[in-house]
Amino acid sequence: MAKKFAELEARMTPESRARAESIYEQHIKEMPLHELRQAKALSQATLAETLHINQAAISKMERRTDMYISTLRNYIRAMGGELEIIATFPDGQVKIENFAG
Amino acid sequence: MAKKFAELEARMTPESRARAESIYEQHIKEMPLHELRQAKALSQATLAETLHINQAAISKMERRTDMYISTLRNYIRAMGGELEIIATFPDGQVKIENFAG
Repeated sequence: MAKKFAELEARMTPESRARAESIYEQHIKEMPLHELRQAKALSQATLAETLHINQAAISKMERRTDMYISTLRNYIRAMGGELEIIATFPDGQVKIENFAG
Repeated sequence: MAKKFAELEARMTPESRARAESIYEQHIKEMPLHELRQAKALSQATLAETLHINQAAISKMERRTDMYISTLRNYIRAMGGELEIIATFPDGQVKIENFAG
């Protein structure tokens, strides 16, 4: 199956690849930070310990609608993930690399 | 081609879908903000005007390695794009929706 997919992809025009990408996009689950943490079966207390901050700070962080990129990266890394910053344009996507910390 | 791809995708197991996603990932261009701006044929002056800030602030922003998510979103929107925050884990990706502003 993987080989078949790779072959199919290699034959794609930029247009069909863009369509494939938008199909792909629909598979990405979307959720707020606290749900993601719960999906990873992690408590606020566990995350607080990993980040060397207190549980109230985690609780506060999860309710914020804006924060420093580095703060978000630390939170996601504490869950075992990596943060990626993507700029989506009508003609494609670009990964922003300024913040690869 | 789009139909064929959709059919193929529908038959995929979570494992082969994850493989497909990592293949997809390789297509994403990676660049710093100032290169993205240049790729969009926009000057610092134009972006400064759109954001109602001065050109020095744009120049400074492009050299930062950390900033508020809202600041980055405004910069990307001024170029006609949308910011997406993705957390990537070994078993998949999740779009973080806390910051959808």
